[in-house]
Amino acid sequence: MENGHSVSNGITNGHAIKKKKENGHVITNGANGTNGNCPESSHHFLTQLFETMVSEGIDKANDRKNKIVEFKHPKELEQILDLDLKDATSDDRLLSICSDVIKYSVKTGHPRFFNQLFGGLDEYTLGGSWLTETLNTSQYTFEVAPVFILIEQCVIKKMLGLAGFDDGDGIFCPGGSISNMYALNVARYQRFPDVKLKGMHALPKICVLTSEKGHYSIKKGAAFLGIGMENVIPVKTDNQGRMSPTALETAIQECQRKEMVPYLVNATGGSTVLGAYDPLDEIATICQKYGIWLHVDGAWGASVLLSKNHKGLMKGIERADSLTWNPHKMMGANLQASVFLTKHKSVLLDAHAANAKYLFQQDKFYDVSYDTGDKSVQCGRKVDALKVWTMWKAKGDTGMAADIDNLFTCSKYLAQLVTSTEGFRLVQEPQCTNVCFWYIPKRFRGKEETQEWWQELGKVAPEIKKKMVERGTLLIGYQPDGDLVNFFRMVLSNMAVTKSDMNFVVEEIARLGSDL
Amino acid sequence: MENGHSVSNGITNGHAIKKKKENGHVITNGANGTNGNCPESSHHFLTQLFETMVSEGIDKANDRKNKIVEFKHPKELEQILDLDLKDATSDDRLLSICSDVIKYSVKTGHPRFFNQLFGGLDEYTLGGSWLTETLNTSQYTFEVAPVFILIEQCVIKKMLGLAGFDDGDGIFCPGGSISNMYALNVARYQRFPDVKLKGMHALPKICVLTSEKGHYSIKKGAAFLGIGMENVIPVKTDNQGRMSPTALETAIQECQRKEMVPYLVNATGGSTVLGAYDPLDEIATICQKYGIWLHVDGAWGASVLLSKNHKGLMKGIERADSLTWNPHKMMGANLQASVFLTKHKSVLLDAHAANAKYLFQQDKFYDVSYDTGDKSVQCGRKVDALKVWTMWKAKGDTGMAADIDNLFTCSKYLAQLVTSTEGFRLVQEPQCTNVCFWYIPKRFRGKEETQEWWQELGKVAPEIKKKMVERGTLLIGYQPDGDLVNFFRMVLSNMAVTKSDMNFVVEEIARLGSDL
Repeated sequence: MENGHSVSNGITNGHAIKKKKENGHVITNGANGTNGNCPESSHHFLTQLFETMVSEGIDKANDRKNKIVEFKHPKELEQILDLDLKDATSDDRLLSICSDVIKYSVKTGHPRFFNQLFGGLDEYTLGGSWLTETLNTSQYTFEVAPVFILIEQCVIKKMLGLAGFDDGDGIFCPGGSISNMYALNVARYQRFPDVKLKGMHALPKICVLTSEKGHYSIKKGAAFLGIGMENVIPVKTDNQGRMSPTALETAIQECQRKEMVPYLVNATGGSTVLGAYDPLDEIATICQKYGIWLHVDGAWGASVLLSKNHKGLMKGIERADSLTWNPHKMMGANLQASVFLTKHKSVLLDAHAANAKYLFQQDKFYDVSYDTGDKSVQCGRKVDALKVWTMWKAKGDTGMAADIDNLFTCSKYLAQLVTSTEGFRLVQEPQCTNVCFWYIPKRFRGKEETQEWWQELGKVAPEIKKKMVERGTLLIGYQPDGDLVNFFRMVLSNMAVTKSDMNFVVEEIARLGSDL
Repeated sequence: MENGHSVSNGITNGHAIKKKKENGHVITNGANGTNGNCPESSHHFLTQLFETMVSEGIDKANDRKNKIVEFKHPKELEQILDLDLKDATSDDRLLSICSDVIKYSVKTGHPRFFNQLFGGLDEYTLGGSWLTETLNTSQYTFEVAPVFILIEQCVIKKMLGLAGFDDGDGIFCPGGSISNMYALNVARYQRFPDVKLKGMHALPKICVLTSEKGHYSIKKGAAFLGIGMENVIPVKTDNQGRMSPTALETAIQECQRKEMVPYLVNATGGSTVLGAYDPLDEIATICQKYGIWLHVDGAWGASVLLSKNHKGLMKGIERADSLTWNPHKMMGANLQASVFLTKHKSVLLDAHAANAKYLFQQDKFYDVSYDTGDKSVQCGRKVDALKVWTMWKAKGDTGMAADIDNLFTCSKYLAQLVTSTEGFRLVQEPQCTNVCFWYIPKRFRGKEETQEWWQELGKVAPEIKKKMVERGTLLIGYQPDGDLVNFFRMVLSNMAVTKSDMNFVVEEIARLGSDL
């Protein structure tokens, strides 16, 4: 029986060894494992898990009637979950723990989860994710990922077109921070190619300029890449949180006076907290004047490029040198999906290539220009493109645009509600789909707004948040920002939201804050 | 109906907008979506996809009777697949494309896929992956990933224990290369904390020592981190591909003479091509003597720590400062699963923290030490721990060890076969589960092995590989290595392999090479 051809062993599993002893081999159903609508295969664990995921992880989890979170403190949760790794576990026991994993996880697909720059659950992106996992491979060569190489290319090309980088290049990265680090690195290489071989010691003292409201990954990246956090120069913003072009030019000149070389300006398309869009056109003009690489961190807000109605927010993007754009944020794809795009065709490969001979053999029998792995700073790279592609293919350009438009419609509606409802105050008119506001409990209203008043108000959001989590009806983040004390940052990125959810937000916060 | 409590909208989907217009809302089945064994829900796409994945992506794909790859050249494949993104697509059409995605993808779970340092498909890790995708969240805070924070902690703790780093710390990273970059960065920070704020200009000229057979990510990392590829000093290996401790000490002294500061030695636990294990104990002694951080790149081979029979290969690991260990390689977890471990408790946080106020608020109502996001160089971070945990929990320590032992048994058996079969020649006795060998066609046999003979032999592996891919019966990688011309590198990391598969490998290569 063990002649290598007649024995089928479709999938190994945790009990392979045990089953081998019992049965010789695990026999699969082969191609005939399905029967009508009901999967009927030997994959008891996967079939049961699928049912649990659909009923508890999707239907129940994302139903407005149900709680977003069943909160337990860490120590309590450790007691409840049977996590300890030691003995083998039966399928039934494991399935029961998987149910608990669902029960105590935060339901990020719930239509009232507004806590992060991601949320919602699209069944096409979910399907694409599952399929990616089933075909478990690495994105580095056409040899082991032929379909995924073409799919990544297709999605990247589409996004390059929307950014106006038609002849450029791009790559999926494990998150927006690393995409931003790609920008820091390729721009550095483009200007100072010696850095690749000789390191920073061969360079003058370089620095990076970014908005004071920009994402912290630029600082993390500067630390990681050996540039140093102090060499990230913050640029002042206007009263809407947008980088001031005048302040940028002043900062550039200031750097030059200090004999520092500003080599990259990081502008933001949709800032993390306020959702501010920096004026890209004016910034591009300055970058051109001084010969500085313009990177745009559009991790959160670049998805407006999908919508004719809102892409104006990114006006000037085609003049940038590179862009970070996360489909796992406003576009609604599953995590992780972040894309780094650049209009400079060869820089990704030139900056990162290490020509590993065991992986990127030049004597392969197919066109090895399809082996993209040497463009990456990684070696093995997770397939992230399929789950974006399945969603986009299902919805089409029109569907993608309509969902973005809906988010803007709801956020504008919420801003109006906040403005017109007693006890709520908008931090500023939203530019993106972040809506930032304070809830002001009764005892604060009509009082003089002294420094003490504000300091006291800063304690309100955390208290409401605690109640929110305990009730599980709503999840919204809060944070201070510069001089502004703690306020709520409602993020709309869940495609399932409606205006009625916006009504609920205001009603529920008023309820939770009524006795504060 | 739209009062926010009574309307259920479990999952948004690609046609949400269209359906909204038609139906007001997509109504889910709520908690009652299952019916006996057969999922009965409105999720037509997901249900159909699940069936296709099980029948085509698992059972058929991983059956020895079927091909590992249905090879098409890139341009042909582009013609076949309907990838273009523009119009919306029906579920049936999309499902049909998903079938094609499976058909033309490489079946990395097939028991005769030996092409990479990963392979096989364990249904518990797959289930864990699917569940991770269903619960789509980011690993950064307890607030949005309570269960996953505890699961990551549990897996890391277990791995720390096996490495002998009991009081250490660790983190899941997007691949082994980035894990190695973590090592380069935290070691640099530990020795020169100024680098974080001031960058490389505040440091002496630092360098890294690594085996000449070590992974190329150390060079990529040195480029990315501003150290420079030229400052990665290769250390000679012995005739088995293991770093020579004498050569290491000489190299260190040589660096010091050149006024370079060697701050990290990268030793390898299972090298990429030959599977060599560097002598960690002797290397640790030298690192101690010179006060240098010892990192071990065990991305491929550290999984022997799971087996009492083979953990001796990593003898001395407990004396290292850090370790890269990829569960998605020999341990059989789905991609991506790479862990960076260090015995220095606080260095991950100290080196990487940027204290983003919008994410890591200190006035949260739970113990914020569970918010691990600031240890990472990323912001959002994919949940990678669950799929490792489900597999480990199912198999238990004993099952994990038995699977590793089986891989070693099969690789030793193959090495014997290769030695005893005419026309095959072992490159060297395997230390790990890589088995490296040449196939020597008839016309080469018995001839004097001149330089020309070897050069000609170097063309054989690519030709056999081409035939292999076309027949689709087997996938094995090849590459040159130093002075050695192209040879096959058989990687055993698929838990489903048996000795009969090893017989098949030798028979099939002889068949494919018979007329060369």
